[in-house]
Amino acid sequence: MFPSAAVQAIPKDALEEKEQKAFYRPKPLDLKQQHMVAPAPPSPSRPRSPWGRLDPYESDEDDKEYVGFATLPNQVHRKSVKKGFDFTLMVAGESGLGKSTLVNSLFLTDLYKDRKLLNAEERIVQTVEITKHVVDIEEKGVKLRLTIVDTPGFGDAVNNTECWKPVADYIDQQFEQYFRDESGLNRKNIQDNRVHCCLYFISPFGHGLRPLDIEFMKALHQRVNIVPVLAKADTLMPSEVERMKNKIRDEIDHFGIRIYQFPDCDSDEDEDFKLQDEALKESIPFAVIGSNTIVEMKGKRIRGRLYPWGIVEVENPTHCDFVKLRTMLVRTHMQDLKDVTRETHYENYRAQCIQSMTRMVVKERNRK
Amino acid sequence: MFPSAAVQAIPKDALEEKEQKAFYRPKPLDLKQQHMVAPAPPSPSRPRSPWGRLDPYESDEDDKEYVGFATLPNQVHRKSVKKGFDFTLMVAGESGLGKSTLVNSLFLTDLYKDRKLLNAEERIVQTVEITKHVVDIEEKGVKLRLTIVDTPGFGDAVNNTECWKPVADYIDQQFEQYFRDESGLNRKNIQDNRVHCCLYFISPFGHGLRPLDIEFMKALHQRVNIVPVLAKADTLMPSEVERMKNKIRDEIDHFGIRIYQFPDCDSDEDEDFKLQDEALKESIPFAVIGSNTIVEMKGKRIRGRLYPWGIVEVENPTHCDFVKLRTMLVRTHMQDLKDVTRETHYENYRAQCIQSMTRMVVKERNRK
Repeated sequence: MFPSAAVQAIPKDALEEKEQKAFYRPKPLDLKQQHMVAPAPPSPSRPRSPWGRLDPYESDEDDKEYVGFATLPNQVHRKSVKKGFDFTLMVAGESGLGKSTLVNSLFLTDLYKDRKLLNAEERIVQTVEITKHVVDIEEKGVKLRLTIVDTPGFGDAVNNTECWKPVADYIDQQFEQYFRDESGLNRKNIQDNRVHCCLYFISPFGHGLRPLDIEFMKALHQRVNIVPVLAKADTLMPSEVERMKNKIRDEIDHFGIRIYQFPDCDSDEDEDFKLQDEALKESIPFAVIGSNTIVEMKGKRIRGRLYPWGIVEVENPTHCDFVKLRTMLVRTHMQDLKDVTRETHYENYRAQCIQSMTRMVVKERNRK
Repeated sequence: MFPSAAVQAIPKDALEEKEQKAFYRPKPLDLKQQHMVAPAPPSPSRPRSPWGRLDPYESDEDDKEYVGFATLPNQVHRKSVKKGFDFTLMVAGESGLGKSTLVNSLFLTDLYKDRKLLNAEERIVQTVEITKHVVDIEEKGVKLRLTIVDTPGFGDAVNNTECWKPVADYIDQQFEQYFRDESGLNRKNIQDNRVHCCLYFISPFGHGLRPLDIEFMKALHQRVNIVPVLAKADTLMPSEVERMKNKIRDEIDHFGIRIYQFPDCDSDEDEDFKLQDEALKESIPFAVIGSNTIVEMKGKRIRGRLYPWGIVEVENPTHCDFVKLRTMLVRTHMQDLKDVTRETHYENYRAQCIQSMTRMVVKERNRK
């Protein structure tokens, strides 16, 4: 297991500046400080609640007409923070497409500092080997145990027949382990290693999907949420990115590949947000650029790639879809990826398991 | 099933007045309006989020140093609101202690309008019969399906030996049904009827607990979260309430009855809240008074009981613990009651089931 790392690298004076500027704005959701800022209970008949600023009833209005169960989401919220979160992300795709760099860029951490790159000779004998990195990160009081499942060497061989098999087996093994655990007697401390999402890296040099890409995604799409990304997009001009994306989307459609479906926007969202959500969905596959290099630009330190002809900024939305990918993967849909894994992929696996167990029992009986 | 009722009886002009007064206060947690009030995204590199005012990153500060997973509790919060909540409350205790009235007072609804009271003759032949009332209520955009499980006639007979048995059986049956469902193939739409809490009504006329109370609670305490209440407390003077509470607490302790343990306060709460939490816990068993009568007092309409010597106000904390009970049961610990049911009571039932199934299989094999 990896040492834990706290991702809160914002410099102290920047924080102070923010505090000064932000006096009229809502404070960030720091639960520790919640009721420090909560006013005294408005009436003696209503005891103080632990929900502070989040209390749906926290105002002077007379609450005689309320039961009070609108605090239920707060109770769930609070418990989830206390318990902490976990997320397991798989990265797949051929070597050299920047998988590790993108993960580092996404999670602002250095997961691969001990990685040893193999030379060509070693890569010939190397099979698809699954490795796992675990890192505990914390942001604004929320703890996340992030597991990155890596598939190094994938697609490196001369003959890549069934190279998706070890990956599919790995995913199934995690489901199997969970099935055993949740069928067991003591279910209190089950370690859940199910893979919640697979970022599939597509080479910018292929003219659309390669046969291996199709084979891989078709083998995996019923087991895991696949989010395809167009890797190393700084080798393509905007018009080329557009053409490549269209090609990939058409092929995904044509070959019946079911990638992760971002759920529809809530109908109660405002129009601007709906339009933005639509734009995000239309960006799939996200064209991404990763970087472990910090470049100084106009006095700001940014992640980027320094070319003689200019600086590629990872987080500049006119340069690539990195921010879009991060927004969907982390800020808006991480929980949905977990729910779909639990409710759809795992349930499918479990149903198949039970059905084949039943078939075996019937066979066994008939033999007697 | 009961017709759905919306509990949002606050008059319109009161709402408007509140709006005018409340301009400087945080708005209630109405998710529908969330990003209507959200400012435009502070930088083009960060897309708009659906978290609005709740967004932990929603400020002008440069977010380049954040991954963004601190929105996970918001994602959970939002999903829980979308899905809606359910809660199953059982009320138990002898007839005439105001169980139905208290439930109506707690949930501001009329669950028992079709109830027919039995006469003495009918009550002689009546056995303990379990009835279920379901009502859908909504408050501040949060939906709750409330199920009230009633045990009418309990303790009414001359001989009440094992009268707790049908109640215990009912709870076990719900566990059994859930066990079947969660072991089955299709787990998508499991209806969860497990009982999350049992309000046990203690007569104010007993000198402490009666033998039946002890027998009942001992038979039930490993199956359900028992919250004891001292019923019809308007028949006791404050000093009598105190004496009675002490007696009941001592007896609960002495007979090894394990009532629902409110979890310890978070260590990061402020001192005032901790003290208040302590005071709430020390109020157990809550001395309660219910009322279906609305009394006009100083121009305000309140739930109360109009005696020649004065008005008993249900929601006046110097008159009884009604508000304390409601606060703990609904506003702060409803989710915990559900979690303890799921993680402790149900898990115990399930473990016992599996163990006795295993024993049966072993016996069967040895016989062959």
